Amino acid sequence: MPHIPLPAELPGISSAFAFRPETAKPLRELAHVLLHEPNSLSPGERELIATFVSSRNECYFCQTSHGAAAACHLGSSETVRQVHTDFTQAPISEKLKRLLAIAGQVQQGGKKVTREAVDAAREQGATDVEIHDTVLIAAAFCMYNRYVDGLATWQPRDEAMYAQMGEHLAREGYTTPSIRPDGKK
Amino acid sequence: MPHIPLPAELPGISSAFAFRPETAKPLRELAHVLLHEPNSLSPGERELIATFVSSRNECYFCQTSHGAAAACHLGSSETVRQVHTDFTQAPISEKLKRLLAIAGQVQQGGKKVTREAVDAAREQGATDVEIHDTVLIAAAFCMYNRYVDGLATWQPRDEAMYAQMGEHLAREGYTTPSIRPDGKK
Repeated sequence: MPHIPLPAELPGISSAFAFRPETAKPLRELAHVLLHEPNSLSPGERELIATFVSSRNECYFCQTSHGAAAACHLGSSETVRQVHTDFTQAPISEKLKRLLAIAGQVQQGGKKVTREAVDAAREQGATDVEIHDTVLIAAAFCMYNRYVDGLATWQPRDEAMYAQMGEHLAREGYTTPSIRPDGKK
Repeated sequence: MPHIPLPAELPGISSAFAFRPETAKPLRELAHVLLHEPNSLSPGERELIATFVSSRNECYFCQTSHGAAAACHLGSSETVRQVHTDFTQAPISEKLKRLLAIAGQVQQGGKKVTREAVDAAREQGATDVEIHDTVLIAAAFCMYNRYVDGLATWQPRDEAMYAQMGEHLAREGYTTPSIRPDGKK
């Protein structure tokens, strides 16, 4: 049961967004810029970073919804599973593996990011903006995950719901609600 | 030295904002809504929550700049110091002490927030929105702190600069830069 009275029909962060639209607006916009707008990292790669950090923070709602969005972009839920289990063995680029290593350091704390990890990503062709965005995506999900779990939001175990949400996010991005209060898209 | 080439004349998060204006916009707006817009928690109380979480995350730039903003609002830097050292002994309301306890739990992780801590805050008069905003301020500073330290931004040890920045933030909020590239206000 949520720690505060959130709309009962909305799962995860959607309920918190409906409770406080004033903060939902910049929170949605940030996710949209980071994960959906044009970028030299594909939306699928950026969703993998988001779901990876969410899995490290053990946030079921975020890792499942962003995992579904990543699977939709990549055409493979197996890749998402492998990134959660051991990203070094996943069928992704060496550059993305090194960016995921940076994201894992950010999840532990900002000061954990090493020059060596940044240099290693750069050696595989990572640009300054890609390194910046990796750090900020990882930092932002340390916020979203804490927000979702810190309010004890409702996080249903309903694979079909997350698959539908992932499709919506992959197609539309983050500026419009993915689930309406009446449960319809 | 920063991990990516950030504008050398700008400290902390200001340099990251200048590097990537697209993400700076929602990041500034979120801080403005959470810390500056009208709220039943005073701006000084909300800045205390921000600087407390930043001190727990050991982010020098954030704890010093938001500590300066809090001191400006409250008319006391001694209160800020006491909140960093042991907030249970600080000259602040019992309600704020219980909200700081929740913020400390969020800093550790979203799942660390207990029903008992929320009930304890409510017993002292905390509203649903105040509990929500405390969770989100704490979560947001787990992002801002990781962003500032994860990029290894320049964080000068210059008390006068932070005092000036704190005055600007307390007066103007977060939607306009507090330090211009030429160093003038």
